[in-house]
Amino acid sequence: MIVVMNHNATKEQVQAVLKRLDKEGFQVHISQGESRTIIGVIGHNTKDLLPKLALEALPGVDRVVPILQPYKLAGREFKPEDSVYRIANLEIGSKTIQIAAGPCAVESREQILEVALAVKEAGATILRGGAYKPRTSPYSFQGLEEKGLKLLAEAKEKTGLAIVTEATDTSNLKIVAEYADIIQIGARNMQNFYLLKEAGKLNKPILLKRGGNATIEEWLLAAEYIMSGGNYQVILCERGIRTFETATRNTLDLSAIPLLKQLSHLPVFADPSHGTGNWKLVPAMSRAAIAAGADGLLVEVHPQPSEALSDGPQSLTPENFKKMMKELKEIAAVLGRKVGNSNG
Amino acid sequence: MIVVMNHNATKEQVQAVLKRLDKEGFQVHISQGESRTIIGVIGHNTKDLLPKLALEALPGVDRVVPILQPYKLAGREFKPEDSVYRIANLEIGSKTIQIAAGPCAVESREQILEVALAVKEAGATILRGGAYKPRTSPYSFQGLEEKGLKLLAEAKEKTGLAIVTEATDTSNLKIVAEYADIIQIGARNMQNFYLLKEAGKLNKPILLKRGGNATIEEWLLAAEYIMSGGNYQVILCERGIRTFETATRNTLDLSAIPLLKQLSHLPVFADPSHGTGNWKLVPAMSRAAIAAGADGLLVEVHPQPSEALSDGPQSLTPENFKKMMKELKEIAAVLGRKVGNSNG
Amino acid sequence: MIVVMNHNATKEQVQAVLKRLDKEGFQVHISQGESRTIIGVIGHNTKDLLPKLALEALPGVDRVVPILQPYKLAGREFKPEDSVYRIANLEIGSKTIQIAAGPCAVESREQILEVALAVKEAGATILRGGAYKPRTSPYSFQGLEEKGLKLLAEAKEKTGLAIVTEATDTSNLKIVAEYADIIQIGARNMQNFYLLKEAGKLNKPILLKRGGNATIEEWLLAAEYIMSGGNYQVILCERGIRTFETATRNTLDLSAIPLLKQLSHLPVFADPSHGTGNWKLVPAMSRAAIAAGADGLLVEVHPQPSEALSDGPQSLTPENFKKMMKELKEIAAVLGRKVGNSNG
Amino acid sequence: MIVVMNHNATKEQVQAVLKRLDKEGFQVHISQGESRTIIGVIGHNTKDLLPKLALEALPGVDRVVPILQPYKLAGREFKPEDSVYRIANLEIGSKTIQIAAGPCAVESREQILEVALAVKEAGATILRGGAYKPRTSPYSFQGLEEKGLKLLAEAKEKTGLAIVTEATDTSNLKIVAEYADIIQIGARNMQNFYLLKEAGKLNKPILLKRGGNATIEEWLLAAEYIMSGGNYQVILCERGIRTFETATRNTLDLSAIPLLKQLSHLPVFADPSHGTGNWKLVPAMSRAAIAAGADGLLVEVHPQPSEALSDGPQSLTPENFKKMMKELKEIAAVLGRKVGNSNG
Repeated sequence: MIVVMNHNATKEQVQAVLKRLDKEGFQVHISQGESRTIIGVIGHNTKDLLPKLALEALPGVDRVVPILQPYKLAGREFKPEDSVYRIANLEIGSKTIQIAAGPCAVESREQILEVALAVKEAGATILRGGAYKPRTSPYSFQGLEEKGLKLLAEAKEKTGLAIVTEATDTSNLKIVAEYADIIQIGARNMQNFYLLKEAGKLNKPILLKRGGNATIEEWLLAAEYIMSGGNYQVILCERGIRTFETATRNTLDLSAIPLLKQLSHLPVFADPSHGTGNWKLVPAMSRAAIAAGADGLLVEVHPQPSEALSDGPQSLTPENFKKMMKELKEIAAVLGRKVGNSNG
Repeated sequence: MIVVMNHNATKEQVQAVLKRLDKEGFQVHISQGESRTIIGVIGHNTKDLLPKLALEALPGVDRVVPILQPYKLAGREFKPEDSVYRIANLEIGSKTIQIAAGPCAVESREQILEVALAVKEAGATILRGGAYKPRTSPYSFQGLEEKGLKLLAEAKEKTGLAIVTEATDTSNLKIVAEYADIIQIGARNMQNFYLLKEAGKLNKPILLKRGGNATIEEWLLAAEYIMSGGNYQVILCERGIRTFETATRNTLDLSAIPLLKQLSHLPVFADPSHGTGNWKLVPAMSRAAIAAGADGLLVEVHPQPSEALSDGPQSLTPENFKKMMKELKEIAAVLGRKVGNSNG
Repeated sequence: MIVVMNHNATKEQVQAVLKRLDKEGFQVHISQGESRTIIGVIGHNTKDLLPKLALEALPGVDRVVPILQPYKLAGREFKPEDSVYRIANLEIGSKTIQIAAGPCAVESREQILEVALAVKEAGATILRGGAYKPRTSPYSFQGLEEKGLKLLAEAKEKTGLAIVTEATDTSNLKIVAEYADIIQIGARNMQNFYLLKEAGKLNKPILLKRGGNATIEEWLLAAEYIMSGGNYQVILCERGIRTFETATRNTLDLSAIPLLKQLSHLPVFADPSHGTGNWKLVPAMSRAAIAAGADGLLVEVHPQPSEALSDGPQSLTPENFKKMMKELKEIAAVLGRKVGNSNG
Repeated sequence: MIVVMNHNATKEQVQAVLKRLDKEGFQVHISQGESRTIIGVIGHNTKDLLPKLALEALPGVDRVVPILQPYKLAGREFKPEDSVYRIANLEIGSKTIQIAAGPCAVESREQILEVALAVKEAGATILRGGAYKPRTSPYSFQGLEEKGLKLLAEAKEKTGLAIVTEATDTSNLKIVAEYADIIQIGARNMQNFYLLKEAGKLNKPILLKRGGNATIEEWLLAAEYIMSGGNYQVILCERGIRTFETATRNTLDLSAIPLLKQLSHLPVFADPSHGTGNWKLVPAMSRAAIAAGADGLLVEVHPQPSEALSDGPQSLTPENFKKMMKELKEIAAVLGRKVGNSNG
């Protein structure tokens, strides 16, 4: 941590800062420049204490510049090798890329079974589908809830696909955990710290979507909430950030993928369906995400997108999904990887 | 709702859209332009049904343009006159502007009592202070919880100030409701729909902060969640949005105030402390918020900002707060309003 | 400047950085922390050299953190007291707030004279109006060019108002300088460095609008371009930044006003018309800008906004402008200031 | 164009809008809903006239919703097949992907020749390098200007590479056009309409970078400026937009590539170097851009990035560039394309 004093800070003001740091047990290095005093703060616990100090509020302090990243368990420094999780017969974060596909929301038995069979056949290994839906408007379809979870279980039994589905509140986390192989925490809940803490007590992988206005650092700190509770199986999922551009629903930030691979050991997925909001862009962005190094994808597939109760405009038909999968396998091969059950 | 077809959409594609709309009971007006067909959709229930349709997913459809605002109860059309709530002896949303002041977090008995007395004396009518704190890092101070609520109650008893404090989860909503006169729902929880629905069952004013990446429309829809549950006493609080500018913690969007006054009948507060993250900017932005038409402010005041366990850099000292209050009263007078207990 | 090394940087990598810094003549302070080496760089010329170094490209370097602000002449450190310019009989940047009002574009003799008389009567001291118009679409009205300048000159003669009008290219800067008392450089040209350099050779105040995606720092660096050429008379004008919110044309960042007052000695104006794009919001945001400390405003006024060739939706009628001016004078008085010719 | 009236608009207000539209020669369709009147406006010239109307300024008008895209020549509707340009022996926009590589700035004869040979050998077909540099700070290196252009010409002669280099102002456009095979217009100049108009008079391909805060629509309108002047050879280049995320210099919006392919017939390049500002992310994002459908790339390569006078941190070494090119060719092959001189 570096404390930059104002150019006209007095000696007394500098002394006050030093006293405060000394009180907290920090060692300091003082650099007396021509125009300013700069104080370097050293100590093995700066990361923990930094959030508790408010040095900017002291007179004469211009800025406090943090040097160390504020997360630990999620960082590459803490664990240099890639994390790989095993669920059922799948590996997440290994050379094999997993594709989770399915409808935005579970709507009916027919719908989910039809989609599950279709995406399985095309090479998906995970079925996605929401039973609890967070919706912007109170007047929108809010999900089938437990009935939806049971339908997912039936689809799993019939196809062997693993299940990823969203828990939207601490009140449904447990029941979701009973049915899901991977529990999704959605973008709007990325900083729902109660939900994160409860998820940290489970022993199931958590797919943590990036909040629409979350920085990479805040996202890793949200992962840290889960991990500091004891659940180390976090999968990060880029799903687009909100920017000024309205031609797409969100701006899918694919550069987050290689950047996270540097900063963290956690597997990284991408969701090109929410990331663009437009099914016509999904195949190109799916290819791009794999090329950028994604460990998996979340893709919306619906048998009749125009009849979907939620997010129809961003859903692929099973036919378009199948075409896309073929290309994804070839791109994965360029990177020395394979896609899901592609040689199964 | 307007459906814009592609310029090369076929007759069959247009027919398919018309059939789908007919099935849902809509009336349509067809405009056959030189380059495109445009379908106007009329019906008293377009607002409810729109989210359920996914016409963009039909072949030949270019875009669907909503015409009506998706919220109802929160809208000025639903209730043309301004909403005014009465809590204890205060009016919210009337000619009288209410100032809520206090520390970011309740830290100790001494701290909260000292602040409460100081802000009361300067003209505040509401005491703010967090007992449950949502924090970006799991390693930051998380609040005194129920003990904090009890300290707020003591401060209320001693000063007569009303209390606004945050509920951060459905699990603490009830206990917060016991102690608070106004329940705050924070920016990160603006789309925590479970919390909103539970808040909708209470009979207490809810101060709903704008999410850092929420549009005005999404914010009003979040208010709609609370109101559609039966609790009509929502106060909107602008607290800054996230933009590319990093010189301030957020960008305080004061234009939201007059815009909300047109779109909605709900009272609007502003929080210049979180909105800027810099106590040096708070007095100017407080004046500006009042001048823009705010019905109240949330301001952070701490006896020793540099010792604060949370958000010290954005807290005013009691002395600076007092100076500021004097100016606010004069600006309010220009608009024919008064500030809190200013003639009390 | 602080150089932060990777946590696993080798001794050789640290040596290479030190060698590079030594080569450029810098002094260094080395802080050997438990997990990283941090190098503090001191020298009177770090500000000049920093942009020329690319230390991040050296192996083992994690980040380079600049400590000093990269602008000089525009900074408050360079000149602690507020800059005040005198044009004709007006002071810019003093206790007197100047209001520039008029149409977006000069359209006809009748239009500009009618507006000029109306805004003068209401208390404006400067007439605004574009003769050269930068327009997003090549099919939009592009301005009357020199004919427009002559009409502004006539309006000035008739009313005594000073003239602010935009130069959009080096090719029209000279002729604009002949007619204008203040030369506007628009948001889209804030980083048109050729135009800035040429403006730096003039001896006329330059009203420099903030670019729609410019940080405060980049804006001050654009001012620095003009000032480093010898023209110290720069007026900064906040006109809104582009954010995700589309309910307003831009997001008017009023916190820039008090922030600039800390960082810089330059006068600061605000443009609530472009800042909101909605005339209904202009009075509230004009009041707020004055309350936040603005030294002047740019306001669009048009006799018949619905017939305007440019930006009609954001223009006030003369009548609404007059009403607004009355309030602005009262708010200015609260701050110990007066508005334009208010006691003339 | 759709005009939406307020829910309480009077008959007279509706009549006034109809009269105004009739005056301009539009046909209208009136939809009298239960809560509002909606006016559909039809006519072959709505695109041209829309910018000239300011119907929002009429009393009783809530919003005006444009239906047609405001650009013509740049649109896919105007020209359904992809545009392909031929420069020297290269095709731009065909099945062959062109890679432009080189330093941010031409610094010396040795530097540019060394890079040119290296990138040629690795498979690049175009040499990039700036002779005129737009820099945020007036104290940064501003380019070698004409001397730089001559060095590029020498490199071209020695390697056969085509040249892309930036014109930063109308004053250097002509001389740049003499040396360049493709003239770059940078992000900061995307709305420098004078430069665009002058570029429209040339008969050379223009590589038009997206402005850091430009929407897709504004970008296509900037292309329209060039094309409406007669120069139809525009190449669009995505280089990142400014968002709240600061972990990367910009957010590279790869979804713009497939979206532009739908909206426009123009070739689309991507610049992962400026798009990320971090050389470590460039290979992944280059692969992703190709996978998303880019017709070419602009990549920064410097023999000694840490000694670069400009943008060193985002430059690849020749060795890293070579490694990356191998992968790009394989990804291109998956899409049925080839890269530059890959089979030469």
